[in-house]
Amino acid sequence: MAAESTDTGTVTAPVTACVIIIGNEILSGRTQDTNLAWLGKELTALGIRLAEARVIPDVPAVIVDTVNACRAAHDYVFTTGGIGPTHDDITAECVARAFGVPLLQNPEALRRLQAHYANSDIELNEARLRMANAPEGATLIDNPVSTAPGFQIGNVFVMAGVPRIMQAMFEGLRHRLVGGAPLLSRTIGCTLPEGAVAKDLGAVQAEMPGVEIGSYPYYSRSRFGTNLVVRSTDPALLDRAVDRVCAAVRRLGGEPEVREGEAG
Amino acid sequence: MAAESTDTGTVTAPVTACVIIIGNEILSGRTQDTNLAWLGKELTALGIRLAEARVIPDVPAVIVDTVNACRAAHDYVFTTGGIGPTHDDITAECVARAFGVPLLQNPEALRRLQAHYANSDIELNEARLRMANAPEGATLIDNPVSTAPGFQIGNVFVMAGVPRIMQAMFEGLRHRLVGGAPLLSRTIGCTLPEGAVAKDLGAVQAEMPGVEIGSYPYYSRSRFGTNLVVRSTDPALLDRAVDRVCAAVRRLGGEPEVREGEAG
Repeated sequence: MAAESTDTGTVTAPVTACVIIIGNEILSGRTQDTNLAWLGKELTALGIRLAEARVIPDVPAVIVDTVNACRAAHDYVFTTGGIGPTHDDITAECVARAFGVPLLQNPEALRRLQAHYANSDIELNEARLRMANAPEGATLIDNPVSTAPGFQIGNVFVMAGVPRIMQAMFEGLRHRLVGGAPLLSRTIGCTLPEGAVAKDLGAVQAEMPGVEIGSYPYYSRSRFGTNLVVRSTDPALLDRAVDRVCAAVRRLGGEPEVREGEAG
Repeated sequence: MAAESTDTGTVTAPVTACVIIIGNEILSGRTQDTNLAWLGKELTALGIRLAEARVIPDVPAVIVDTVNACRAAHDYVFTTGGIGPTHDDITAECVARAFGVPLLQNPEALRRLQAHYANSDIELNEARLRMANAPEGATLIDNPVSTAPGFQIGNVFVMAGVPRIMQAMFEGLRHRLVGGAPLLSRTIGCTLPEGAVAKDLGAVQAEMPGVEIGSYPYYSRSRFGTNLVVRSTDPALLDRAVDRVCAAVRRLGGEPEVREGEAG
C-alpha cells in the first residue's frame, strides 16, 4: 500500500548524519572550511539529513568525546582533517580510543603507501608510515588523489581535510551509505522583502508541518528580495506547499519564480 | 613580578568562546558559512580562544540544549542566524527558554524599529515587530546596517546571520569582551613536503608544550610545500620555537620564509 500524503505529512524518522571538522586552523580562521557545505549537499541528495556539525580543535580528549557523542546520536558520522603525517594529525588514534580498540598498522594501507612512494623520489619515512595506521577492525576508504587512505569504523567515516581529497574519498564510500527518502526542495524567488511575506508564510508552515519552509532574504541590484525554500520528502506535499507559497506571494503583489532545488 | 618564560610555557587557563551557527540552510549546503572564520580571527586577536563551533538546525529543543551546553562550557558564546521576521527565526525565543526567562518586547528595540520604518514606505507589521523581542534582562547589540538589533544575555551574544550585519554587530560589542593574553602566531613557509619535516617538527612540539605547531601542506605552481604555523601567548617562547623550526627546515635542505600571523 502506498503511503498516503496528507498536509501534515508522513512521519518517518530521517536518516541523520553529523560532520566533525577537526583542526585548530578552522577555529583560528586561518582556513575557510568548505567541506561542510559540500557534504551537506551530497548527503541531502542521498536522503541523509545532515543534522549537526561540530568544529573542534586538535585536542585528543575533545576529539574522543565528540566522536563518541556524535556516533551515538546519528546514523552516520563523517570526520574531516587530521590524518596526515605530522604530530598534529591525531584523528586516527583518537577514533581508535573512542572505539576502545588499538591503532594498528593496516597492511593494505601500508602496501598502497609503499607502492606509491616506490614510484617517487620521496622516502616512506616514519612520519609518513603513520598514515598507514587505522583502528583495529576499520575498513579503508580509498584516496585516489594522494594514496594515504581514510577509514571507516562502525558508523564513523574518517576523511582528509583537503577538499579535493575529501571529495574523492566520499565518492568512493558513497555506495556504503543507505539513505531514507531524499529531501526534495524547491525555491520560490520573489522581490518582496522578507517582512512582507512573513505572516502568510508562517501560516502555510503552521498548517503544513510535513514541509519545512526557509526564508532567505537578499539584497541585489539595489532591491530587496526573498528566496523561499520549501523542503519535503513527500513530492505531492511539496507541490501543494509550493502552490500555496506562490499564491501568497501573488496575493501580496509579488511575482513568484519557482526553481528546483535550493541554490542561490 | 613578570611571569618567567620557559620552554614549557606558563600555564594560564585561556579565555574561550564557542560559536553556534543556527540555520537549516548551512547544514543543507545552500549557504556557505563565512562567519566562523571571520569570528575566529577577531576573537584570536582579542585574546579569546575560539574553542568550538556548532552548526545546528532551526529546531527549538536543539537550540535550547546547545546554548545551555555551550554557555556552561565557555566564557563567551556567539550565535549567528535566526533573528529575522519569519517563522523560522526562532533564536530569540530559544535563548530566552535556555535562560528560563520570558521573551518580551524590548522598548528600545521597538523605538529603533519604529524610527527606522517611519522613514520608509515599509510597514512595521506584526512579523517585523518580532524583531523587537528579546529575553528579559538582555542588553541590545546595535545593528547599524538594518536596525533590528541583536542582544546579549549573560555570556551569550545573539547576532544576525548575514555576514555584513554580523560583522557590524560584532564591532559594536567588541568593547564588552575581556580577553586573555593574545595568541601570537608566525608562519614558516617552506617548499619541503609535509612528510619530510614531520619528524623534526614533532620533536620541537614535544619539547615545547607552551607553543602549538600546526602543519598545513599546499600544492601550488606544480610543487609541494608546507606552511608551519607556530602559536603561543608567550612572545619569547614563540621566538625560540620559530628559530627551532627554521633550523629544522634548513637542516632538511629547505629555505624557511617567516611571516607574521597565520594567513595563507
